[in-house]
Amino acid sequence: MKLDDRGLLIVISGPSGVGKGTVRKALFAREKHNLEYSVSMTTRLPRVGEFDGTDYFFVTRKQFENRIKEEKLLEYSEFVGNYYGTPIDYVEDRLNEGKEVVLEIEVQGAMQVREKMPDAVFVFIVPPSKGALRDRITKRATETEDIINKRMDKAEREFGLAHKYDYIVVNDNVENAADRIMAIIRAEHAKTERTIHKYMKILEVE
Amino acid sequence: MKLDDRGLLIVISGPSGVGKGTVRKALFAREKHNLEYSVSMTTRLPRVGEFDGTDYFFVTRKQFENRIKEEKLLEYSEFVGNYYGTPIDYVEDRLNEGKEVVLEIEVQGAMQVREKMPDAVFVFIVPPSKGALRDRITKRATETEDIINKRMDKAEREFGLAHKYDYIVVNDNVENAADRIMAIIRAEHAKTERTIHKYMKILEVE
Repeated sequence: MKLDDRGLLIVISGPSGVGKGTVRKALFAREKHNLEYSVSMTTRLPRVGEFDGTDYFFVTRKQFENRIKEEKLLEYSEFVGNYYGTPIDYVEDRLNEGKEVVLEIEVQGAMQVREKMPDAVFVFIVPPSKGALRDRITKRATETEDIINKRMDKAEREFGLAHKYDYIVVNDNVENAADRIMAIIRAEHAKTERTIHKYMKILEVE
Repeated sequence: MKLDDRGLLIVISGPSGVGKGTVRKALFAREKHNLEYSVSMTTRLPRVGEFDGTDYFFVTRKQFENRIKEEKLLEYSEFVGNYYGTPIDYVEDRLNEGKEVVLEIEVQGAMQVREKMPDAVFVFIVPPSKGALRDRITKRATETEDIINKRMDKAEREFGLAHKYDYIVVNDNVENAADRIMAIIRAEHAKTERTIHKYMKILEVE
């Protein structure tokens, strides 16, 4: 496997409620793609119907903490007493197979990936308007007004990190957003810094 | 017209013989596009069937030289005693109308545009191999081996400028190359530096 044929790491992120998961699913529903979803690792127990290696890599707390110590996670966080993270080796293996690896993660996780894989492509999903975001958060939550406001506040703080991403994709319509991400992947493969060594080599060969 | 709705200036360039013109024509043959071809200005006389404002803007030598003095050309060159150039005002007007303006120019001209419009998108077209380029140059020319070699030498010197472009698009197949350019245009519109002000504004509005 030549380095040139490595896939891209695509990080799809954005505040909760912008529809990251829906956009990601629309991408994977495409007929022709070379995408691979990055399976996360977690310490929580499998739910009925979940399979190890498909839904998550299920590990013990000790195994997860060893991974942290050995710096074998691209990013991780703790949520309601359980760890969630992205194993580096899984991502690297898929990239070396030439797959485009898609991570769908929270903003804080994306910032960790940026440190470790500056070469990845960072896509920030935004809602078409603040009103649309509030609608989504309200619809999803069975929560009180207070909790909805807290989520809106968190989302607004996270919008302030948009400048740290390479692309901003508005989720006005899921298929449009997925189209834009497919175009981004295609364009990134043509970027001079990614391809110049390859073409300089080709042009040496008669 | 808001600044945000301005089109992109797409500069398609590369050594002679790589098929810039064919790729450009394939782009404009697409069913749905928002592209506008930038009409060049020249001091040469119109040929039969050529129209002012469609094929070229035909001007006198004095008019052209005034344009040079007034810095109203994005780029220009002299070839076999005639001037050829790109009028800035035509390009600016189309960009402000929200059109994606496509320039198809030689490498030296592209370098001039880079100075004046750093915001433009620079696409370098390369052949799939050196052999393919030689075939194209040979087929096209009724020239001697010596002239073919000179063109190959010039092309090779120009390949050395590839790193000054944003994207390298291999012309393995005209439709593939055109697809890649369409993806590049779409991705460029989603680039954070182009869109962040727009989205920050949108997210202020409930």
